[in-house]
Amino acid sequence: MRRYLLMLLGCLAAPFGSASSAEHWVVDVDHWGSPEYQSLLLERRGDALSGTLGGDPLHGRGDGADLAFEATDARGATYRYRVRMDGDALSGQADFPDPNDPARRARHDVAGRRVPARGAAVPQRHEYVPTDYANAFDPHRAPVLTIWPGDTVRTRTLDSGGVDAGGATRALFGNPQTGPFFVVGAEPGDTLAVKIERLRPNRAYADSLDAIVGRALAQPLVAEAASLGRPRRWTLDLARGVARPDAGGGRLEGLEIPLRPMLGGLGVAPGFGFPPISSGDSGRFGGNMDFNEVVEGNIVYLPVFQPGALLYLGDAHAAQGDGETTQYALETSMDVEFGVEVLKGAQIGMPRIESPTHLMALGQAGSLDDALKAATAGLVQWLRQDYGLDLSEAAQLLGAGAEYRVATLAGRNAGMVAKLPKSMLAGLPRTPPPPTHDAR
Amino acid sequence: MRRYLLMLLGCLAAPFGSASSAEHWVVDVDHWGSPEYQSLLLERRGDALSGTLGGDPLHGRGDGADLAFEATDARGATYRYRVRMDGDALSGQADFPDPNDPARRARHDVAGRRVPARGAAVPQRHEYVPTDYANAFDPHRAPVLTIWPGDTVRTRTLDSGGVDAGGATRALFGNPQTGPFFVVGAEPGDTLAVKIERLRPNRAYADSLDAIVGRALAQPLVAEAASLGRPRRWTLDLARGVARPDAGGGRLEGLEIPLRPMLGGLGVAPGFGFPPISSGDSGRFGGNMDFNEVVEGNIVYLPVFQPGALLYLGDAHAAQGDGETTQYALETSMDVEFGVEVLKGAQIGMPRIESPTHLMALGQAGSLDDALKAATAGLVQWLRQDYGLDLSEAAQLLGAGAEYRVATLAGRNAGMVAKLPKSMLAGLPRTPPPPTHDAR
Amino acid sequence: MRRYLLMLLGCLAAPFGSASSAEHWVVDVDHWGSPEYQSLLLERRGDALSGTLGGDPLHGRGDGADLAFEATDARGATYRYRVRMDGDALSGQADFPDPNDPARRARHDVAGRRVPARGAAVPQRHEYVPTDYANAFDPHRAPVLTIWPGDTVRTRTLDSGGVDAGGATRALFGNPQTGPFFVVGAEPGDTLAVKIERLRPNRAYADSLDAIVGRALAQPLVAEAASLGRPRRWTLDLARGVARPDAGGGRLEGLEIPLRPMLGGLGVAPGFGFPPISSGDSGRFGGNMDFNEVVEGNIVYLPVFQPGALLYLGDAHAAQGDGETTQYALETSMDVEFGVEVLKGAQIGMPRIESPTHLMALGQAGSLDDALKAATAGLVQWLRQDYGLDLSEAAQLLGAGAEYRVATLAGRNAGMVAKLPKSMLAGLPRTPPPPTHDAR
Amino acid sequence: MRRYLLMLLGCLAAPFGSASSAEHWVVDVDHWGSPEYQSLLLERRGDALSGTLGGDPLHGRGDGADLAFEATDARGATYRYRVRMDGDALSGQADFPDPNDPARRARHDVAGRRVPARGAAVPQRHEYVPTDYANAFDPHRAPVLTIWPGDTVRTRTLDSGGVDAGGATRALFGNPQTGPFFVVGAEPGDTLAVKIERLRPNRAYADSLDAIVGRALAQPLVAEAASLGRPRRWTLDLARGVARPDAGGGRLEGLEIPLRPMLGGLGVAPGFGFPPISSGDSGRFGGNMDFNEVVEGNIVYLPVFQPGALLYLGDAHAAQGDGETTQYALETSMDVEFGVEVLKGAQIGMPRIESPTHLMALGQAGSLDDALKAATAGLVQWLRQDYGLDLSEAAQLLGAGAEYRVATLAGRNAGMVAKLPKSMLAGLPRTPPPPTHDAR
Repeated sequence: MRRYLLMLLGCLAAPFGSASSAEHWVVDVDHWGSPEYQSLLLERRGDALSGTLGGDPLHGRGDGADLAFEATDARGATYRYRVRMDGDALSGQADFPDPNDPARRARHDVAGRRVPARGAAVPQRHEYVPTDYANAFDPHRAPVLTIWPGDTVRTRTLDSGGVDAGGATRALFGNPQTGPFFVVGAEPGDTLAVKIERLRPNRAYADSLDAIVGRALAQPLVAEAASLGRPRRWTLDLARGVARPDAGGGRLEGLEIPLRPMLGGLGVAPGFGFPPISSGDSGRFGGNMDFNEVVEGNIVYLPVFQPGALLYLGDAHAAQGDGETTQYALETSMDVEFGVEVLKGAQIGMPRIESPTHLMALGQAGSLDDALKAATAGLVQWLRQDYGLDLSEAAQLLGAGAEYRVATLAGRNAGMVAKLPKSMLAGLPRTPPPPTHDAR
Repeated sequence: MRRYLLMLLGCLAAPFGSASSAEHWVVDVDHWGSPEYQSLLLERRGDALSGTLGGDPLHGRGDGADLAFEATDARGATYRYRVRMDGDALSGQADFPDPNDPARRARHDVAGRRVPARGAAVPQRHEYVPTDYANAFDPHRAPVLTIWPGDTVRTRTLDSGGVDAGGATRALFGNPQTGPFFVVGAEPGDTLAVKIERLRPNRAYADSLDAIVGRALAQPLVAEAASLGRPRRWTLDLARGVARPDAGGGRLEGLEIPLRPMLGGLGVAPGFGFPPISSGDSGRFGGNMDFNEVVEGNIVYLPVFQPGALLYLGDAHAAQGDGETTQYALETSMDVEFGVEVLKGAQIGMPRIESPTHLMALGQAGSLDDALKAATAGLVQWLRQDYGLDLSEAAQLLGAGAEYRVATLAGRNAGMVAKLPKSMLAGLPRTPPPPTHDAR
Repeated sequence: MRRYLLMLLGCLAAPFGSASSAEHWVVDVDHWGSPEYQSLLLERRGDALSGTLGGDPLHGRGDGADLAFEATDARGATYRYRVRMDGDALSGQADFPDPNDPARRARHDVAGRRVPARGAAVPQRHEYVPTDYANAFDPHRAPVLTIWPGDTVRTRTLDSGGVDAGGATRALFGNPQTGPFFVVGAEPGDTLAVKIERLRPNRAYADSLDAIVGRALAQPLVAEAASLGRPRRWTLDLARGVARPDAGGGRLEGLEIPLRPMLGGLGVAPGFGFPPISSGDSGRFGGNMDFNEVVEGNIVYLPVFQPGALLYLGDAHAAQGDGETTQYALETSMDVEFGVEVLKGAQIGMPRIESPTHLMALGQAGSLDDALKAATAGLVQWLRQDYGLDLSEAAQLLGAGAEYRVATLAGRNAGMVAKLPKSMLAGLPRTPPPPTHDAR
Repeated sequence: MRRYLLMLLGCLAAPFGSASSAEHWVVDVDHWGSPEYQSLLLERRGDALSGTLGGDPLHGRGDGADLAFEATDARGATYRYRVRMDGDALSGQADFPDPNDPARRARHDVAGRRVPARGAAVPQRHEYVPTDYANAFDPHRAPVLTIWPGDTVRTRTLDSGGVDAGGATRALFGNPQTGPFFVVGAEPGDTLAVKIERLRPNRAYADSLDAIVGRALAQPLVAEAASLGRPRRWTLDLARGVARPDAGGGRLEGLEIPLRPMLGGLGVAPGFGFPPISSGDSGRFGGNMDFNEVVEGNIVYLPVFQPGALLYLGDAHAAQGDGETTQYALETSMDVEFGVEVLKGAQIGMPRIESPTHLMALGQAGSLDDALKAATAGLVQWLRQDYGLDLSEAAQLLGAGAEYRVATLAGRNAGMVAKLPKSMLAGLPRTPPPPTHDAR
C-alpha cells in the first residue's frame, strides 16, 4: 500500500509523455500475418529524427509526413522503416533481417496509430459505459479508452454468461470482458498495478450451479456427482450484504452467506507471437484467475507484454469459495471502479495480489503441484525484489509463516497462491524501493 | 465441540466394559508370520461360552482355563479356537478356512493378553513419562498405557531428532513417537477423537533448516537452492510467546514470530496386513500429518484399525507455516495433555480436524492434485454424515465458502485440507447426531 | 486399415454433395463479435425452401437471391434468417432467441460463402503450394483449398521456425501451419481420417537443441541443465535415411540415427466459442501433438468441430524420441502427401492414431497423470465403438496387453498414448462396422 | 550383457572373502530399538585387531572371544565396542557419541552373527525350497540362504495371494516374497545385479480381475467402472505358451495372449532408519515394481542398503500389460532361477533394467509426472556413468531416441521407465568400464 501511494505521487510528478515533446505512436509490423506492436517515441529536430522504437534507439530523416528511419537492437541488428503519416494514422514498409539467415532480409508492411495526448496533467476519473465486449484477452482489439497512470475508471462488467444488470444478454457466453484499456506508459517489461477501488453487484440475483469440478472430485463421488451441474439461482440482498439460495426447501433453507464481490477475470493482452487467449483461460498475464482475493481494496500486479498493457476485466462473482468448485460461482453483473499505476522496469514473473494484510503470489499451471511451485517462486521473487532478502532468508520466512490457498480449480490452469502476512515483515529493515520501481 | 461434550457425557454414563461382566482380551492370530489382533469379549455361563471375537459372534465351552470356541463371520465361515489362559495371557491354536480354497483349512498359532479392568468409573487423568519411543506407527508394539474414553493423559514428546527437553538424544532420529496408548473400546470401524488440551514447548530452543522442499521448489530456484538446507536454531521466548532466529545479522535481524505449538505426528496403528509404518509417513491413520492446525484446543478425529486404536504422538513444532516448506519446522520437545473419546461405528475416510471455528478434512496422496480431491471428499462426507446434507447441498456450500489449505509438502504424501467455516452451518437445520455417534 | 479401405470405397460410391441438387453454403452468424459457422444445405422447389442449417431442419421462401427462412433446433427454439445472395457470397440478418431469457430475442449479422461444387466424381489428387501460413488453428481463416473425402493432397510444410526448403524464413516462428483445407462433408460431430501417404524431408539439415524440457528434468539435474538449450544442427542424409549431429568431436562423433519423418502438428479448427488456438498448443482437435507415430503409412483420426473440418498441418520432424525432450526435435521442412476421409457421426473423444500393427489413443492434459487417464478412456471408447466390447472385456484386454507411451512433454499439454496391438484383437468376433461409420 | 559377463569373470577370479583371512560378521547396534547392521571384517595379529566396520577402519585388542575395539568415521568420531563371541554369535555393548550433542555419549547393545565361509571357490548353483515367506522387504528378517557373486539360485514364488503351485495358501495375501538372500560382499553403496535366468509358471492357471485402477480411470468411466473388479481366472497353456480367459462366452471368446512371465516383486532391504516396507510398496530399493520387462533374460540392477543386500522376490505374473491396469495381472506361482553379481561402489540412484536391446531406468514416485522426471535422471546417470557422455550429449541422445513406458499404475508409487535402444550407443566410442565396476 505504501508503495502504491509512492507510485501515485511519482505519477503526479511525472506523467508519461508530459516531460518531453516526443510524439507517441503504436506501430505494428506485419510478420507474415502476425502483427508486432511497439511504442514509437519520436523526436524531431528539423528533419532529423531520433527517439526509440520498442525501446531500441532510432535515427532517421523526415520530411513532414514522410519518414525514413532505422532502429538498432541490442545485438546490432538494424530494422529500416519508411512510413507516411496521415493524421493519427501511419502506414508504410519495413525491411528486416531474416531471423534465421543473416544474409537475407525480408519486407514487412507497417501500420500505426497515434497515442492521444493527455488532456490534463492531473489524474483523471473516467467513466466508461461498454457497448461491446471481448471474448479473448486479445492484443489486436482496439482500445476502448486511453488512460494514464494515476487515473481511475468507473465501468461495468457483464456476468460470465454475457448478461447485464437488466437480465439481457449483451455478449457471447464465456466470461466476456470489458476493455481493453490502453495505459499510456506501460511497456513490455513493466508491471501494471490495478487497484480495485470499488466493486459492487448491480443486480439482485446471481446464477450458479450445484457442481463439483473435476479437479475436486474424488473417484468415490464421481458416480453420484453425475446428477449435479444443475443451475442454482441465488438472491443477492445488497442492502444486508448477503446471498441466499433460491431453491426452495431442503437443508439449505435459511442459509445466508456474506457477499464478497470479486473479479474472476482481470488480465492484460499477451505478447507478440501469441494469438488472442480465450477469456476462459489464464496465465502470467492474469486472465481468468478466479481468485477470491481480487476484491475491493486490494491491488493486483500484472506483467506488461504490449504497449499500453491493454487491460481487460470481467466475470465478477458476488461470492466464491476457494477454487470455484461449482464451476460457476455466484455469477453476476457488477459496477467497478479501478485505478492504475505503472511500475517501470519491475519485471514480475506472475500475478501478485496485495491486501492490507498479506502479500500473495499466484502460480498457475496444469496441475496443483506445478502451480504451487510457481506460487512459491513468485513469493520468493517478491521478497527478494522488494525486501532485499536472500534466498535463505526468504526460505526461513516461508517455513515459519507462509500460507497456501487454492485460487481456482475450474479452469485449464489450476491456481495456487502463496501468501505471507505483512506482520512478519514489519520488523525487518526496510529496503529502499529500487529506482526502477518509480512510476516513471 | 458440542458433539465432543456429548461424547464426554455419554462416556461418563457408560464407560466401555463396565456395563457387563465380559472378560476383555486382545487375541492375536499368527497368519504365516503376520499377526491379526482382535478384541475377544467373553461371557461365561457355567462352562458355556458366548461373546464376540472381532465383532463376530462366538460360542463354545470352557473348563476354567481351557477353552474351545468357534466364531462365525458374516459370510458364514467358521473359525475354531482352542486356547489356554494363564493369568493375563492366553495361547493356543486356531483352525481357519483356507482363504483361497474353501475345501482346505489351515492351522494358526494364537496368543493373547487380557485388557486391564478400569480402576474407577470416572474419567481419569493419567501421567505418563516415556522411557522409550517408537520410530513407526506399529501395530505390534506393546501399549505403554491403557486408557478409557473420557480420560486425559499428560505426557511429553521428543523433538523430531529424538532430543529431549534437556538436549540429550533419547531416541533415533525420524520423528520418534510417544506411545502407543490403548484406548479401551476403540475397535476397527470406530473413530477416535483426540482433543489437544494443552501443548507447550518445554525447552528454550527449536531446530530448523533454511531449506525449500522439493514439492515447493520451481526450476528457476533449484540451482540456487542447492546451497540451502543448513541448520538454523531459533530461540523460543516462552514467556513472551515468540520465536527468534539465532543466526546473527542479516535481514532477519529483529524478526519475531508468534509461537503456535502443534503436533506434527498423531496417528493410530495401521490395520491387519500392514507392516509398521515409518514415523515419517502418513495416511488414513493420521501419522506424520505435519498440519499446523493440530494445536491446543482443536480435536483430531482418526479412523480406528486395531483394537484399542494404539495412539502415537510426536514431532511437535513450536510454529510452522503451511506445508513445512523448510523440511524441519521449529522442531522442539513438548509437554502434551490430551483427552480421548470414541465414536462407535462412525466410519470416517480420513483424518478430520475440528477447531472452534472450522471443520477441516485432510486429504493425503502422492500429489497435491489427488490430495485435494481426497480432502474435498472428506469434507463432503462430514457434511453428509453429521449435517444430513445431500451431495447437491454440500456442493453448493463448498462452492460458496470452502477454503483449501496445504497441510504438508515435506513428506512422501502431500497433504491438502478442505475447510468450511462453522458459521456457514449455523443457520442450517440440525441433524440429530445419529445413534452410532454415541460414545458407546 | 481395412476400415480405411472401406471408407475409400464408400466415398467413391457416394461423394458428398453429388447425390443431391442441394446448394451448399457456409453461413456465419455474428454473435456479438464471435462468428458461428454452419453448413447450409438448401433445396428449392419453386420458391419454397427446405434443407438443413447446422443439421437443424429449415423451411422458408425465396424469391431468387432474397431468402427468408427459419431453422428449428432440437429443443424447439426458432432461428429466423433473412439473407441476400450475391454470386458466391450471401449476407443478411438473423433473429435469435436470447439464450438467457426466452422472452427476449436478439439480432445478429449474417454472412456466408458458397462451397464450390466438385469438379469430378472420382477422387482427385491436388497439388497445393503454400504461399502463406497460419500461426494458429484458426476457425476464421479462409480455406486454402477445398477437397472431398477420398481426395489426396500433395503439399509442403515449413520447419517450426518458419524456414523453407531453401533456408529462407517464410512465416513467423512457432510452428506455422499449412492450411486450412476445407473437407466437404465434414461436419461437427463427424470424424476426419487423415492418412499420411508420404512424408519426406526436402532439405539436407534439421535444427535442434541439446535441451531437456522441464517436464523431464528432475531436480538433481536442473542446476547443470541451466547451460543447455543450445542450437544443434543435424545433417540429414536423405539417400541413406540417417541423421548425424554436426557438432564436431565429443562422444557423439559417429552417431547416426535412422530418419523417421513425422508431423508434429496436425489439427482441425476448434469449435464455436473458442478463439484461434496457438499453433504451439494442442487439444481434442489435435494440433501440436508432437507424437512420433504420426508417420507415413499411419492414419490420424480427429473429431470435427467446424464445417469442412479446416485441417492444418506443419512442424515436421525428421526424427524424434518420445516426448520431444529437447523441446525442438530434428526440425525440418517436408514434402507431404495425405488423403482424407470422413466418418459420419462417429464421435470420438480425442485424437486416435492407427498403424498397421496398433490402435493408439492420445490423451492430452496439464499433467501426465490426467493425460494417461484420458488416453485409457480413448482406447476403451475405441474398443467399444468399433469392436463391440463391454467395459469389463475392454478392461481385461488392457490389463493383459496395453502399452503406454509418452507423446509429448514439450507443450502446455502433456501427451500420453494408450496402445493395443491389433494382434490381440485378431481372434475376436468381428463387429460389423456400424452404419454411421460409413464414409457418407 | 558384456559387462555382466565381465563381472562374472571378475567374480571367478576374486570371490569376496576368499582372498583374505578376515573374519566376516554382521554386527547390529541397537539404537533405542532400531537395529543398525554393518559388516565387520576383522583381522587378528596376535591379540591386535584391525579391519573395518561398515567400511570405517577399526583397531583394538582381543583376547580370544573377548574383544574391545574402536572404529573411527570419516569425520573423526569414534565408536567403541566391547563384545564377546560365542560360536557364530556375538554380543556386547557399544559407546557412541550423542548425535545431537558432541559432549555426550550414549550406550547401545550390540549383537552379531558370523557370515558363513564359502564352501567352494567356483560359482555355485543353489536350490532353495521356501517354507515361509515375507510380507515386507524387511531388513530384520534372517537370511534364508547365503550366496556369493556369480552364484545362481533355483527357487519358487507364490502368487500374490499367497497360493502355491498346488492351489494351497501358504502365506498371507499381499505379494508374499521368497527370501531374503544374503549376497556376500554386497555392501551399502554397491549395486546388486540380478540376472533372471529362467522364469516359468508352475501351474496351469492364473487369477486376475476385470478392473481398471484409479490411476488409469478417467471420470467419464468411473460410474460404470464401479461394477468392475470381479475375479477372472485364466487358463495357462504352458505347452503352447498362451493364456486364455476362462469366463465363458462374450466377445473375449477365442482370445489368446502370449505368456510373458515376469516378476512383479524384486527388491532388497531398505537402509538403516527405515522400518520393514510392505511387499506391496516400491522405491529405490526396487520392491513391488510390477514392470513387465523383469523377464527371463534381462538383468535388474538395484542399489544396496544393507550388508548382504537381502534380496527378496515374488508376485510373478504370467503376462501383464503396461501399468498392471487390472490391479491384479495374471497372478500365478512360478519357478525361478536367478544369478547375482555385485558392482562395487557403483552408486545408482534407482532400479535399472537391461535387456538384450535396451537400457531402462525406472523412476517411481507419487505421480507419473514425478516418476518420469526420475526415470529420465536415471537414464542420464547411466549414460554418464557407463558411457562417459556429458549432459549435453545425453540430452541429444534422449531427444533423438528415448522411449518412455509406464511400469505400474497399480501401487502407491507410479512407475515410469525411460528406455534407450542399445543400437543408438553402438557407434559411440566405448568408455572403459571404470575400475569400481569390477565385481570386487
